[in-house]
Amino acid sequence: MKLHCSRELLLNALTIVNKAISNKTTLDILKCILLTATEKGLIVTATDLELGIQSAPITAAIEETGSIALEAHLFTEIIRKVNGTEVFIQTNEKNETSISCGFSDFKIVGQNGEDFPTLPKVEKKQEYKMLQSNLKNMIRQTIFSIAQEESKPILTGELLEFKQNQIQMVSVDGYRISFRKEEVSENNREIQVVVPGKTLSEINKILSNEERVVLLYTTDKHILFDIDGNIVVSRLLEGDYIKYEQSFSEDYKTKFYVNTTDFLQTLERVSLVSRDSKKIPVKLDITEKKLIVKAQAEMGTAYEEIHVDVEGEALQIAFNPRYLIEALRVIEDDKVAVQFTTSLSPCIMKPLQGEAFRYLILPLRL
Amino acid sequence: MKLHCSRELLLNALTIVNKAISNKTTLDILKCILLTATEKGLIVTATDLELGIQSAPITAAIEETGSIALEAHLFTEIIRKVNGTEVFIQTNEKNETSISCGFSDFKIVGQNGEDFPTLPKVEKKQEYKMLQSNLKNMIRQTIFSIAQEESKPILTGELLEFKQNQIQMVSVDGYRISFRKEEVSENNREIQVVVPGKTLSEINKILSNEERVVLLYTTDKHILFDIDGNIVVSRLLEGDYIKYEQSFSEDYKTKFYVNTTDFLQTLERVSLVSRDSKKIPVKLDITEKKLIVKAQAEMGTAYEEIHVDVEGEALQIAFNPRYLIEALRVIEDDKVAVQFTTSLSPCIMKPLQGEAFRYLILPLRL
Repeated sequence: MKLHCSRELLLNALTIVNKAISNKTTLDILKCILLTATEKGLIVTATDLELGIQSAPITAAIEETGSIALEAHLFTEIIRKVNGTEVFIQTNEKNETSISCGFSDFKIVGQNGEDFPTLPKVEKKQEYKMLQSNLKNMIRQTIFSIAQEESKPILTGELLEFKQNQIQMVSVDGYRISFRKEEVSENNREIQVVVPGKTLSEINKILSNEERVVLLYTTDKHILFDIDGNIVVSRLLEGDYIKYEQSFSEDYKTKFYVNTTDFLQTLERVSLVSRDSKKIPVKLDITEKKLIVKAQAEMGTAYEEIHVDVEGEALQIAFNPRYLIEALRVIEDDKVAVQFTTSLSPCIMKPLQGEAFRYLILPLRL
Repeated sequence: MKLHCSRELLLNALTIVNKAISNKTTLDILKCILLTATEKGLIVTATDLELGIQSAPITAAIEETGSIALEAHLFTEIIRKVNGTEVFIQTNEKNETSISCGFSDFKIVGQNGEDFPTLPKVEKKQEYKMLQSNLKNMIRQTIFSIAQEESKPILTGELLEFKQNQIQMVSVDGYRISFRKEEVSENNREIQVVVPGKTLSEINKILSNEERVVLLYTTDKHILFDIDGNIVVSRLLEGDYIKYEQSFSEDYKTKFYVNTTDFLQTLERVSLVSRDSKKIPVKLDITEKKLIVKAQAEMGTAYEEIHVDVEGEALQIAFNPRYLIEALRVIEDDKVAVQFTTSLSPCIMKPLQGEAFRYLILPLRL
């Protein structure tokens, strides 16, 4: 392999594919980035065997095609810190790799590119197309409520449901449900897949806030995201996701409308006294014209009143404040509607505008 | 105790005194901030018994004098997050403390202010006066080379020498010496004290970059810094500091002048290959017109040439790159002079301008 290419383009590609490098791996080859010099350009690839990322081909002057696997952290730091604009890379039959750029000459020992695991094949047919900014928002607004524990592996991922021209994303951790929907390009195939949380959080870092397109393809076992020509392939989680639809009932006996930021900040303040123990609940006392939010813990008590518009009956109910806070933090609308049936039934929170997302949160026993 | 005061002024004072709160303490009272309502205003104090900080009195409407000790983290977070401009604080005989501000009412249980340890008395005579920005710079440019190990406790602090109208600060970790001097107000008393590194790094966060004054006072056991009326009292380290003066010899056989940033970046790049093991040296090969910097480790080799102006003999010498890098990072001048006698003797590095600071670094055996 012998080539030269732009340092900036190479660094951009490395930044993207590095997100598939796991710190936990004990396999030396998985600590490496694969460089492949092809006639289309230089391609960089990384994988932790669950998530694989392959860059779009980088324009490069390829004098000799070939491949080499180089320790990801070292190679990336070299490319980040050298001071030239053009990088020269050359390997020999012993996998010794010369890297020259600016003032610097490095020789590092790589591993045979042939030993690098190949990414799973996902055929590019039956595509779903959507805006990167939309997918990014969907992930941000749901990922916080995936299950952290491994006891129900399926819940450590998110459900992606494709229906006609809609994509729905759902996360459930046993105490709450986040639901978010968005438009995708029309497609007759209705499918459901469960994507690991780690994949989505890495994808989230790669997606642009701009109005560019992302393409999604699935098989039984894998999902492929094509983001500006960069390919992210992830295995899917196996098993049946829980039925969540009927949980979002439209019935309510009590409902209030509140300024999102005011409600969030009140909860953040009131929950200060309970920070040492997550189990100390925040109590909501909903009366005709106001909401009283209070907490009582060993270290003290907190009390706030906040203006709300109430429909229906008065109600007292208690929550783990974190569950309310995390949902409120990702809601962009100024106002939210929060509705209840009884003090032992879940509450449903929705932004006032639109039907794009909704949250369900289980109360604590008073 | 009963008072109200500006939330902003109280928060500023809390931010300063919190630097004396140790996360490691097991004594409950040391996790607290002491609030003292006096006729001069509200004073807040924190201590870890080695370092104590007392705020300048905050203007407050004191209805009832008194004192209370409140859990520092909780109280600070409350004051940070409440949304009013004026804070009301009232205690009762059971040490229950009401804190009201904006929408919020908190009741937290404090401890008797009388149980809070008093800060050591340091009489304010024989003062040394200097600019805060100068002291801040001195700390920044020397603190990185204090000893981290506790095997020689005296070296975990810095030597402060007051001589006529000069203050000298020195740190030594067994492999290198940082020396920095600055002007102070004339004072006939010549003294030497050793101040714990932790004290200096906390002081550094409190000192302003502006041209305001800091006053220093010492006793046999303590040093007091008066920073804009905020009092920082620290115990001194006991024992004899090592004699360092004769190490800074002016003799040399080889000397080069180099651009500070170029030399720093070259060392950062070349040391990339040795990152897994600190013991892998960076070799300097000094010839008539250039400096070759190289490193060889298991994972690869790095090589760079850099333009320097050389005086005297050619020389090959090796260093722990971290020691050179940390000194170069805090040097503000464009150019440094680096001088050597033999490949086994220490090198001395100085900015080209002025005599305010100099570094000594021991080489590694080639």
